[in-house]
Amino acid sequence: MRVSRFPLFTVKETPADAEVISHQLMLRAGLIRKLAAGIYTWLPLGLRVLRKVEAVVREEMNRAGALELFMPAVQPAELWQESGRWQQYGPELLRIKDRHQREFCFGPTHEEVITDLFRREIKSYKQLPITLYQIQTKFRDEIRPRFGVMRAREFLMKDAYSFHLDQSSLQEGYQAMYDAYSCIFTRLGLLFRAVLADSGSIGGSRSQEFHVLADSGEDAIAFSTGSDYAANVELAEALAPMGERPAPGEAMTRVSTPGIKTIAELCAFLHIPAERTVKAVVVEGVDEQPVLLLVRGDHEVNAIKTEKLPQVKTPLVFASPDAIRAAFGASPGSLGAVGFSGVIIADRTVVKMADFVTGANADDWHFTGVNFGRDCLEPEVADLRSVVEGDPSPDGHGTLAMARGIEVGHVFQLGQKYSAALNAAVQGEDGQPEIVTMGCYGIGVSRVVAAAIEQNHDERGIIWPAAMAPFQVAVLPIGAGRSAAVREAAEALYQNLLAVGIDALLDDRDARPGVMFADMELIGIPHRVVISERNLTAGQVEYRGRRDVDNTLVARAGLLDWLRERLEMTGRG
Amino acid sequence: MRVSRFPLFTVKETPADAEVISHQLMLRAGLIRKLAAGIYTWLPLGLRVLRKVEAVVREEMNRAGALELFMPAVQPAELWQESGRWQQYGPELLRIKDRHQREFCFGPTHEEVITDLFRREIKSYKQLPITLYQIQTKFRDEIRPRFGVMRAREFLMKDAYSFHLDQSSLQEGYQAMYDAYSCIFTRLGLLFRAVLADSGSIGGSRSQEFHVLADSGEDAIAFSTGSDYAANVELAEALAPMGERPAPGEAMTRVSTPGIKTIAELCAFLHIPAERTVKAVVVEGVDEQPVLLLVRGDHEVNAIKTEKLPQVKTPLVFASPDAIRAAFGASPGSLGAVGFSGVIIADRTVVKMADFVTGANADDWHFTGVNFGRDCLEPEVADLRSVVEGDPSPDGHGTLAMARGIEVGHVFQLGQKYSAALNAAVQGEDGQPEIVTMGCYGIGVSRVVAAAIEQNHDERGIIWPAAMAPFQVAVLPIGAGRSAAVREAAEALYQNLLAVGIDALLDDRDARPGVMFADMELIGIPHRVVISERNLTAGQVEYRGRRDVDNTLVARAGLLDWLRERLEMTGRG
Repeated sequence: MRVSRFPLFTVKETPADAEVISHQLMLRAGLIRKLAAGIYTWLPLGLRVLRKVEAVVREEMNRAGALELFMPAVQPAELWQESGRWQQYGPELLRIKDRHQREFCFGPTHEEVITDLFRREIKSYKQLPITLYQIQTKFRDEIRPRFGVMRAREFLMKDAYSFHLDQSSLQEGYQAMYDAYSCIFTRLGLLFRAVLADSGSIGGSRSQEFHVLADSGEDAIAFSTGSDYAANVELAEALAPMGERPAPGEAMTRVSTPGIKTIAELCAFLHIPAERTVKAVVVEGVDEQPVLLLVRGDHEVNAIKTEKLPQVKTPLVFASPDAIRAAFGASPGSLGAVGFSGVIIADRTVVKMADFVTGANADDWHFTGVNFGRDCLEPEVADLRSVVEGDPSPDGHGTLAMARGIEVGHVFQLGQKYSAALNAAVQGEDGQPEIVTMGCYGIGVSRVVAAAIEQNHDERGIIWPAAMAPFQVAVLPIGAGRSAAVREAAEALYQNLLAVGIDALLDDRDARPGVMFADMELIGIPHRVVISERNLTAGQVEYRGRRDVDNTLVARAGLLDWLRERLEMTGRG
Repeated sequence: MRVSRFPLFTVKETPADAEVISHQLMLRAGLIRKLAAGIYTWLPLGLRVLRKVEAVVREEMNRAGALELFMPAVQPAELWQESGRWQQYGPELLRIKDRHQREFCFGPTHEEVITDLFRREIKSYKQLPITLYQIQTKFRDEIRPRFGVMRAREFLMKDAYSFHLDQSSLQEGYQAMYDAYSCIFTRLGLLFRAVLADSGSIGGSRSQEFHVLADSGEDAIAFSTGSDYAANVELAEALAPMGERPAPGEAMTRVSTPGIKTIAELCAFLHIPAERTVKAVVVEGVDEQPVLLLVRGDHEVNAIKTEKLPQVKTPLVFASPDAIRAAFGASPGSLGAVGFSGVIIADRTVVKMADFVTGANADDWHFTGVNFGRDCLEPEVADLRSVVEGDPSPDGHGTLAMARGIEVGHVFQLGQKYSAALNAAVQGEDGQPEIVTMGCYGIGVSRVVAAAIEQNHDERGIIWPAAMAPFQVAVLPIGAGRSAAVREAAEALYQNLLAVGIDALLDDRDARPGVMFADMELIGIPHRVVISERNLTAGQVEYRGRRDVDNTLVARAGLLDWLRERLEMTGRG
């Protein structure tokens, strides 16, 4: 493409209402424009990127044996009533009435439509398993759309659905999609992790999220430095420390701690590390009685894990200061197990501790040298806390590190939620109807573009991974007047690049070099070749990769091969 | 693809609610399934066809220099209020309220959105002309959706918009799109005509429709047998006959025609051809007085042309029998110019007639040997009638023939309708703001698929033009048990076809030959190769083109080259 025929809608100013860097850069680089809140037009440059993502997704889905179809955006309410989601789905579901006052929605997802299609078309177990997908515009009426296409209302999604006779077939289909997703994000050149996740409102038994790692990500992820284990930090299992609990070595001593309420204050006051302290938190038990939770002073009680404990009331209720005073005779900052005869649950780390420091159930007093069994009841044990950096990985390989991520994909084992509701059954081997088991698998295609920018940018603009770059190479003829030699050399290189199938962008504007450099850096073209009169005279051109700090002079003779090698090295998707 | 991994959703029965053949065949061949009235899912086989159409459209649009972008489906009401169409557009506009009760619509077209984008982004005449397009899902809430994807509510459309500084630039841009459309439909292998059309409700000065010719088409088209002239039959100009009006040769004679009301009755009674008679029709003039229209007995008054006459009231009102009796003293079947002193407008053909037969303005009486000037007033002259088969073509080349067509594309010169309403101006050469001039250009991508079937089918199913075929070659191994040799030969051919880039479908089902033949004919694969034990022994396979009546035995040696040659001959898009 020539810039004269492919206008760049770049802008210098950072748009005031764009909070995150990807949104700012997508506007500044001329990839998108806002039409309404959470509704964006993809400009030609942005669409090239979107289509490249789409193409990689399509290729890998096809390679995995999934069949592409194309379902309508507008879906009849009847199917959503059949699944029960017409009522359950909140105002995010954009409801529509047609001219005959019949109810429809603009599909936020397609479980109902695909399950309806399945039950009409697939009759026998012999036709299973089958995985169907589409790449299509969805609408979710977010209450507060923001961050550009990252949390838009109208967006492009790849959604796939698999149908199986049994759980083991679902497991295989799920794995195939997991593998395809890994290929997709790898080919797209993104740093990512498949993260164990809660399956949320879609329901189902097992799910993983694919997160692009970026400091600006909304989700906190714990991942192993020694394996591909990763989980939402709230869900990652905290293992028990190795070894046995040491024998008591100190006598329990009641110490005055006037005005001390927090672990930090306690440690400073007693000159001890937080690892020697035990923090107590009180929640309501299933029998409405207080349950005492113990975690190490430097750890935090994890509410999601706590709520899953059989001893604890659901939904989780933290005890009020009044209830605590009634049960313990002290304020929340001075609690401990000593003297408490109710249910005590200690974190796996705490139960291995000896001679620890804890509240004395009296304001302004603590105990040191406390030991389970000797000074207080032996507690029940559970995984109560959130993991921290350096914890051993739950899969036994390496230790955990923390990162932030942007969710770009999700694989679910749906089970029979929709197939049972819509009675999607096939004739089994024994001739009897069997409700099928389903999986569903989404990729936020437009969101991937924003996530890639969050991960790959600098102060000058976007740095596209090769597979997503709208153009691979920018060819910039510079110099006042652009001599015929400069123009011809640029044109020849441009044509040669196209001839070998490399997407090149020739900046044939009559612009100053600074303007051209700034534009090409802003829009993130991975490779740049500058052609000037002076270098040309020496038989050279100036090359710079988007992440390079310096220019490299390259001989024109053999330039194309040199560039192709460079492109191969950095990957072309 | 292998049928074992690419299930065909073919059905034998003709669906009851499908009225037209394309709808029936699209359902039977498993291309689409209905989700709701006018809302269809594209199954994998159908989507392959749709994508092939899309690809040809995209390539030719790009070649013509148009830039692809992607606008949202959901559009804010404010823009439609600014253009005035929020009020004007009837219930076909699917109006939506979001969770905040803000008004939107599901875009049936994108003039407002693109004009809004333009006015924000394009500031100078130097950036013109520019043509932008998208391929996108639209929604029009048809009161009676029918004929499958032919008149669906949700459908895929390519819509392009061009922006110009002046009319001559618009004319160039319009011509470029016209040429691109001609390339597109030619490449798709369709018989089509570009038809002069009324610009309808979108407004603008000049427009042409692209029609795929098919007997089942909704629109009647007049086209030249000697040029590319074509027009909606209602709009085609009827030229004046060559030569002068003959001198009168007969005396005017009043003849009794008891009970005669129609031209057919008159001709039978007097033993004369209809070409010698003149039919009279009365409409209201601008001054509410009756205007007498004269067309030849075998012609029909054209209401669209008549309404455009300055002498005639708008909208057109045909005079009532009472008004006619008051003005002429006779019934509608007995009218003529003799003795009438009001406005008389004769068709161009009539004004060249001499010695004609016409009503005598008295029931049961006619005149023969009537001549203008001598027996009645010399009339005003206009093009009053619809063209008929055999008329000279208005462009002076050849004569007109009639056909029926399905509109699949439309090119418009919009002018400033939207740019003026939305104040889309650029800085002109003189520094002053100038409202731009626009064109818009649509192709009903999903409709093209149905139109192609209407034009290309037989009693056994679809006959895809090469460029639209979901697969080019079907490879069918047959024979009980499918010997290893048969399987291997089929597999080898399939792999060889894929290796040279030919889309092949291997029917690896364990089905009877009749089932496989019927399926492949129904889904319209252009080329079929049958591999059987008996022929294989003789070193041969059986070939049949979809339109062929007989099989051809072809030697396996050189089969691939033979097939490639055959594909080249029949076009591969």
